[in-house]
This record gives sequence, structure tokens and C-alpha cells, in this order.
Amino acid sequence: MTVHRQPASVAALSEADLLARIFPRLAMAGAHSEATLLGPGDDAAVVAAPDGKTVISIDTQVQDQDFRLEWPNGYRTTGFDVGWKAAAQNLSDINAMGATATSLVVSLTLPPDTPVSWVEDLADGLTAGITGLGAARCSVAGGDLGRGREISVTVAVLGTLEGNAAVLRSGARPGDVLALAGTAGHAAAGLALLESTVNVDALGESERVFLDLQCRPRPPLAAGPAARAAGATAMLDISDGLLRDGLRLATASKATVDLDPARLQALAEVLRPASVLLGADPMAWVLGGGEDHGLLATFPAGVQLPPGFAAIGSVLALGSNESPSVMIAGRPADAGGWDHFAH
Amino acid sequence: MTVHRQPASVAALSEADLLARIFPRLAMAGAHSEATLLGPGDDAAVVAAPDGKTVISIDTQVQDQDFRLEWPNGYRTTGFDVGWKAAAQNLSDINAMGATATSLVVSLTLPPDTPVSWVEDLADGLTAGITGLGAARCSVAGGDLGRGREISVTVAVLGTLEGNAAVLRSGARPGDVLALAGTAGHAAAGLALLESTVNVDALGESERVFLDLQCRPRPPLAAGPAARAAGATAMLDISDGLLRDGLRLATASKATVDLDPARLQALAEVLRPASVLLGADPMAWVLGGGEDHGLLATFPAGVQLPPGFAAIGSVLALGSNESPSVMIAGRPADAGGWDHFAH
Repeated sequence: MTVHRQPASVAALSEADLLARIFPRLAMAGAHSEATLLGPGDDAAVVAAPDGKTVISIDTQVQDQDFRLEWPNGYRTTGFDVGWKAAAQNLSDINAMGATATSLVVSLTLPPDTPVSWVEDLADGLTAGITGLGAARCSVAGGDLGRGREISVTVAVLGTLEGNAAVLRSGARPGDVLALAGTAGHAAAGLALLESTVNVDALGESERVFLDLQCRPRPPLAAGPAARAAGATAMLDISDGLLRDGLRLATASKATVDLDPARLQALAEVLRPASVLLGADPMAWVLGGGEDHGLLATFPAGVQLPPGFAAIGSVLALGSNESPSVMIAGRPADAGGWDHFAH
Repeated sequence: MTVHRQPASVAALSEADLLARIFPRLAMAGAHSEATLLGPGDDAAVVAAPDGKTVISIDTQVQDQDFRLEWPNGYRTTGFDVGWKAAAQNLSDINAMGATATSLVVSLTLPPDTPVSWVEDLADGLTAGITGLGAARCSVAGGDLGRGREISVTVAVLGTLEGNAAVLRSGARPGDVLALAGTAGHAAAGLALLESTVNVDALGESERVFLDLQCRPRPPLAAGPAARAAGATAMLDISDGLLRDGLRLATASKATVDLDPARLQALAEVLRPASVLLGADPMAWVLGGGEDHGLLATFPAGVQLPPGFAAIGSVLALGSNESPSVMIAGRPADAGGWDHFAH
């Protein structure tokens, strides 16, 4: 009788053995992708860039900063969650340029006691995130593995503009319509639930959906290229909150961003199941919550907004001596959102 | 009287403030580079890929794994060291494909008590590494900042093959000459010095050079494209030791790599100042030491080796029932080198 034992932790495996466990789970690498010309196995990968340029971004998730392995409400973050979120965050940055992801490379830092099954689950989540979010042309082209005291997952992602110009933050013009694709505040509501004492098992489906979105964000990947094609003048993804990211767009465009309170109220209304449960102000989540990875874009007035976008405000000219800012119906809005170092 | 105070640690700065400190030190970003079409400031950067493909690699350095802030011999790793090494390791991966680096993106994870000056120094080292190693066409296109319990620096680097095919690990053929560009064992000797009780201030210049190479490796960046142009059949960078990386080349090429003991002896001889001081075997450093980031390449017999390369062995056909391996003068060599998880 043969006994198959699952190694308990990554310390029991060589780097090559661990890679051999991960690669089959990144099934798309080199297979589905037309873009990956040379996948894992050499010192570097080679990715197609048919129009002669490559969009690139990089993003890191660190244990106990970007996720907790166990949350106050009892939820345990799975490797699948972390893999999905790594894909989602990075794919969103490509989306925000109006581009389409072609390839990503992953650097994993793992404490020696990390269960092998957790890492396999992470690989599954990465693949599921790419597939589930609709990044059908994207594959994992390569990566790096190392030790550390805390889990850290860095992804660099490449994308293609297919011959088009990127949509920058700086192109918004007075009179433009400000529009949102995707959700706002759902991930923040989910974070509040995770950090609450309301046990995860006690959550109903109408609250659980927010927790799920915090752990496995769903950026609207079709919306970025659609916005570019529709003539978006400026765009960025909302990773740090509507106010903070709105201010970035306003600053880059030297303009004022004015939000429509009725639209904000409608966005807050959706969060009611979680805000009632926690006795929280849903508007703080709408204005300050990032990590939904929705898109904030501006379009010339009169342009038909592409599918997935809804108007939430407008772009105003700067008055003399005015600094770029975010307003709500013409009144200053407090800057909130997330800052990695000062909060 | 105005008092200017230097903030002691990154916790005192917002993310935007810290980026404002770093960017001016990455002076080349967007300036010197013909490749960076869109630099920092948007959700992603855009990099030129004139021949329609991009080479990409990713690599991470973690505190207490890849470097110690203070070593047993008293040496304190500077931010400059870590920045330089991050550049060097990644540029080497592009070099090993026969390509030229065009751009890199950086993700920094910093404990809140990291001195701001250390991070500024890291940015200086990154820039100095790119410039000092001769990657004149490369610039920093973007990055990411976050918190963690330990310092972690991930770089993803892009390169161009300028219309040529990449040199893979798998192309070595029986009869090929095996050649080395760069040094072997110097960084390992430096590591042994750092981990010794011989105080850094007691080192003479002839030993100190090895320590410096461990902290600020000098991969031969001209040699990769030169090897490709000269018809190299296989290539990789030596990051984990001559034996271990030689075995990777042998395995990918389904061949045996045979090292010339006289050449190995000559490589070991150079390490004598450190080996005598520490009573160590310099051959273990030559065979097992990575991090010099030299290149190991194979060339068809009769090809004139490009500048920087010296023959160190040959490629032999696999006998029937033989597995790919590394030999020294036809006798099996022990697999050494570095493995992240089993050592």
C-alpha cells in the first residue's frame, strides 16, 4: 500500500518542487495566450506587443497590511482570495489606461511555514481571477519565489493599447461628464464587516456579498477599453476612494470635480444591509472606500456613455486662485480614502 | 529663524510626500530614456517595444533573506546597496536573454520606522546601478509603495531583443564550448566575509572588493547581447551558482555540461585573499556561489568568443540512460548552490 502524504509547509519543498506544484495550476500560461511568446523556464519571458508599445504596472499585497490571514469576524483569508485579488488589482490598472492585459509575472514571498495547499490555492485564485474577470488574452508568463517573515505577493502586469493612445488622468476638461463604472464602497463595507465582531457565519447573503467583494474584487475589465473607444478624456481606477482618486484626476487635469449628491446617495443606498448591521455611515464607504477597483472617467458632454458607466458628476473649470478639488454640488468635500503612510 | 527638520521615518510622510522625495532621485525617468513613452503619474506606464515584443522578468529582495541591515562583521547594508542590487539582479535577467533593458517598475514595501534617508538612498542606488552598469537606455517607469514588517523590494524589468530571437537555456548542443562572462564566487566570498567575525573595518582592499560585489553586483551587461550576436546557442545568468545553474542549462538542453578543472582552479585562485583570511575553500565559492550574476553561455565550436567571455568547459552528449548533469573533467560534480527552500 502506497501512502501519499501532502507536505505540510513550503519549507519541506525545494524551490523547483514548489514551482512544479504551482505551474500546472497556472494552466493558461503559454497555452491559451496568443501574447506569451516565451513562458516560464528561462531567465525572462517574452510577450508580444504587436503595436510596438507595452503598458506596465506593478502592485504588491502584504499580509497584515492588505489582508489578514484571520479577521476579527472569524473569516480566514484563503490563498484563492489573495491570488484573485492580486490578479484583480493589477488587471484594473491596465483597464484604467483603456488597455487590455496580455501577461503577468508574479513574485511570491512566503514564510517557511506557509502550507503548500495555501500556495496551490493562491495559484488557483490567480488563474480564476484572470479568467473570471474576463482577461481572456492574459496569461502568467513567469515569476519568482523567495522566503520572508510575511506573505507578500507582487504582480507586474503588461497590457496592449492595440495601437490606440492611453487614457491619462490629465485630460479632463470643464464641461465633461464624470462617470463611474463598477461599484463604490462595496469593498469598504466588506472591510468593515471583516473588522467587526459580527461573526462571518452570521452574515446573510445581502451582507456577505460585500465581504466577498473585498476579498475578491471584480473590476469591470470591459469598461476601460470601451471608455477609451467612446472618447474618454481622463480615467483612473478607484483604488483609494472616490474623493482621493477624484482629487488625483482633478489635480492632473487642473480642474474641479463636482459630484452629484443624488447619485452618491443612490450608491450609498445599495450598502444599506451592511451599514444597518454595523450602525455605520454608508456615505463614508462610498466616498472613502477603495478596492472595488471601479473606473472613474470623464467624457465630453453629449457622448453616449459606454455600457457599464453611469454619470456621477461633472468637471468644472478652476476659478482664479482655486486649487483643484473635489466638490459635492459645489461645496468642498473632505478628502478621505486610504493613505498607506498617513492614516 | 527657520528650522528644517528631516522627517525621521517614512511613518511621518504621506505616500504622496514620500514619492515626491523619491522621484527626483530617479532622475532618468522619462528624461534620458527613449523607451519610456509614459512615466510615473498614471495607473500604468507605457514603454516602447519597437520590434513588437517585450522581454520581462521580476525579482524580489527581502530583508533578512537577501540582505541583513547589519551583518555579523559589522557592515550595515545601505539603501544604496539594496537599490543597486535590485537594479543589477533584474538587469542581469534581461542580459541573460541576449536583450537590452528598456524600463523597470519598482514595488517597495517599507516598515513604518524605515528612515526616509534610507529610502532616498535606495532610489539613488537604483539610479546609480542602472547608470553604472551601463543600462543607458533603461529608466524607471513607475512603481508602488506600501507598508510591511520587513523591507521588500521587487523590480520588474522590461527589455528589447531589437528584432532578434532570445537566447534560451535549451539550445546547447554536444560539442559546444561553454563560456563564462563576469566573475564567479566573488559575491559568495563577500557573503562569507559579511557573515564572519572579521570586522569590516579590518578588511584590506583585496578582501573588501568581494564584500562590495556581494552588496553591489556588477553583471556584465554588454556580454548578453554580444553573446546573442555571436551565435550563442544557450545562455543563463549565474544567480544560484555554477553547478546549479550549469545543471539548469544541461537539463533544458538535454546534455551534459563538463567543466575544465584548470579553469575552475584559476577562478578559485582569484579568491585567495578572502579564502586565506577565512580559512575557507575557494572552490566551494566558485562552484556554489551565485549573485555575481555572470553569464554562462554555450557557443558552437570554432566561434570566436565575444569580449568578456572565457571558455570554462564544453557540452557533451548524453549517454544512453544518462541524466543531464554537470561534470568536472568527466567526473560527477556535487550539486551545490543556493536553494530558497531546501538548504
